[in-house]
Amino acid sequence: MIPVVDLAFSADFIARLASVLGKPVAPVALHEPEFEGNEWSYVKECIDTRWVSSVGKYVDEFELRLAEFTGAKHAIAVSNGTAALQVALRVAGVGAGDEVFIPALTFVATANAVSHCGGIPHFVDSDPDSFGMCPGALAQHLEAIAEPVAGGYINRLTGRRLGAIVPMHVFGHPAKIEALLAVAERYKLPLVEDAAESLGSKVGGKHTGTFGQTGVLSFNGNKIITTGGGGAILTDDPVLARHIKHLTTTAKLPHRWEFVHDEIAYNYRLPNLNAALGCAQLEQLPGMLSRKRELASAYREAFSGARNFDFVDEPDGCLSNYWLNAIRLKCGDLEQRNALLDAAIGEGYQCRPVWRLLSSLPMYLGCPRADLVVAGELENSLINLPSSPSLAGLLKS
Amino acid sequence: MIPVVDLAFSADFIARLASVLGKPVAPVALHEPEFEGNEWSYVKECIDTRWVSSVGKYVDEFELRLAEFTGAKHAIAVSNGTAALQVALRVAGVGAGDEVFIPALTFVATANAVSHCGGIPHFVDSDPDSFGMCPGALAQHLEAIAEPVAGGYINRLTGRRLGAIVPMHVFGHPAKIEALLAVAERYKLPLVEDAAESLGSKVGGKHTGTFGQTGVLSFNGNKIITTGGGGAILTDDPVLARHIKHLTTTAKLPHRWEFVHDEIAYNYRLPNLNAALGCAQLEQLPGMLSRKRELASAYREAFSGARNFDFVDEPDGCLSNYWLNAIRLKCGDLEQRNALLDAAIGEGYQCRPVWRLLSSLPMYLGCPRADLVVAGELENSLINLPSSPSLAGLLKS
Repeated sequence: MIPVVDLAFSADFIARLASVLGKPVAPVALHEPEFEGNEWSYVKECIDTRWVSSVGKYVDEFELRLAEFTGAKHAIAVSNGTAALQVALRVAGVGAGDEVFIPALTFVATANAVSHCGGIPHFVDSDPDSFGMCPGALAQHLEAIAEPVAGGYINRLTGRRLGAIVPMHVFGHPAKIEALLAVAERYKLPLVEDAAESLGSKVGGKHTGTFGQTGVLSFNGNKIITTGGGGAILTDDPVLARHIKHLTTTAKLPHRWEFVHDEIAYNYRLPNLNAALGCAQLEQLPGMLSRKRELASAYREAFSGARNFDFVDEPDGCLSNYWLNAIRLKCGDLEQRNALLDAAIGEGYQCRPVWRLLSSLPMYLGCPRADLVVAGELENSLINLPSSPSLAGLLKS
Repeated sequence: MIPVVDLAFSADFIARLASVLGKPVAPVALHEPEFEGNEWSYVKECIDTRWVSSVGKYVDEFELRLAEFTGAKHAIAVSNGTAALQVALRVAGVGAGDEVFIPALTFVATANAVSHCGGIPHFVDSDPDSFGMCPGALAQHLEAIAEPVAGGYINRLTGRRLGAIVPMHVFGHPAKIEALLAVAERYKLPLVEDAAESLGSKVGGKHTGTFGQTGVLSFNGNKIITTGGGGAILTDDPVLARHIKHLTTTAKLPHRWEFVHDEIAYNYRLPNLNAALGCAQLEQLPGMLSRKRELASAYREAFSGARNFDFVDEPDGCLSNYWLNAIRLKCGDLEQRNALLDAAIGEGYQCRPVWRLLSSLPMYLGCPRADLVVAGELENSLINLPSSPSLAGLLKS
């Protein structure tokens, strides 16, 4: 079967990519880490001092610097973003059988973390501008299904408790977080902010991940900064912060020698070795953010006036980290999208589509959901472009 | 309240420690890592090539070398030992409400991993010689409570399905694994071997962790080799190995660009940066094992003929890695044990007791259990001694 695609469309896409990135001699990665600062020296110090594991000064320092950078009162470093989300949901009170509202358009970790708490993902539609969870759609859906009971709300269709709301900042572009917070407050639902992709992104000057009860960051290898694998939980609440630290470090009570643990807990520590890399990366972050903005500007210009697609710009009133630059097909079409991906990858530009809607994955097919019209449209129209900060160096000045 | 302790007892303990370790100028750690090989060059290569995260040659190499060293057909590297146990239990079929037999005398991770699968720890007594799960006590207990049903056994007292047996090799000394396997087979229960502490330990020439359906290793900072944080699952079954790899890497199906995941899964990858450290550590392992045996010999000699305690030797027919050397009070007594710990730590020898019985921790108080007489006696009598391989260098030759 030959898909009905417009080949001129692909040629136009490749020409615009080439105008920014040149013609690749080797494949241009989607997002590569960059180690141009103190990465070596901090990591070497861990090895030289033998402090590579669960305790060490870099874990403390990384947490302090993350709090300082984001403006959160507390940051707790953990082994990755999925672990961070799971623990954030647990301290939000999510337990067995609770429904948790998440966007259908997000990375699978958001839904998995809900499952790891024993909860059930409940999928909500996306906002057509920010691509994050749509506050209007959420409010309308809650209006239809939420039934007040003592101490909270249940889903009147399933009888299950409503546990939390987890918006996510797609590609680093901030979701409409203030409007989402207003809905969460109306239904007394804790809001856990999945800011895995949005380190450096702000809404009205306030850092993403600091609006909700907790916010979650990821430092996986493809993120704006990396610790190899790693994540963090942000919160302004000192009691939650202490509890999170306790839960992520096996809930051991301090004692000179006794092994007393007082809760079922996790080994989700970030090793000192990885935190050392993170400290060096955080020092480089402001420079990377500014180079990523340069690259975004170049893409914006290159894709301006295109007949078939638009460059994805940061939402109004927001500062995006432009983690992954993207274009959006004016007319979403899966075959056309795939033809563009094929062409770009063939030419050496590592582009990728947005995620499959989680609501369509086999293990989540039975989960409750709102209408997902916008999310479905976005699934067929979004393509990410190579976005490493180092690519700014290739730009003609 | 002044505990009734024999002070001569403590003086004798300190004198024997000093005869091996000398008088400390700085505290002698319980177990310190040692980086005397290619640690820095492998880690540096990760940073230089920017392959620090979830994909990279060191993860593959670490898995191959672990398989080679242990004789397992497959090894899958993961983020830590707790994660390894959880996934091993999941592929063993342990699910919500299943009871899993574990020793009461083990680190809390064994019980937490059962809980993370939705299972319920069921505590079994220890063997007085190996300190591992007692095969006789297990058999007797199963005889009393196991009731055959279609496809397996239930606990006739709780009605819950019996899911698995998880013996653990305490301090690196092999448990009576062959007898435990025979009991497991009689009741058609998968056996998951918690070999977190026993890398390098063997029973009749066969490596611990390779007897059960799966075996689990840990590379936490206090273990014989470390990756900062890390673990691995060993198995001879290629289908299980593939499934384990899939589950620990978000269950993503291979595709050039699509994000399709087909199971609720985990982000339990070991980062390449940590695997690089692990590859270098594995190269050093044979040397460390032999220095740990030298240190054990020195302790054995120093504690021979003591009136109140015995050095803990490897069980007959076994080769122990002597991860943590230990002495055992001839007459177990909590106050006497604590007085010894106080004295040793006061003199700069970082000793520690064995774990509190998990069956006594608040979150596991309600869990089913067999008689735990031996475990209780061991809890009051075991003390670990400083055991870093580097300490062998201090010995008078």
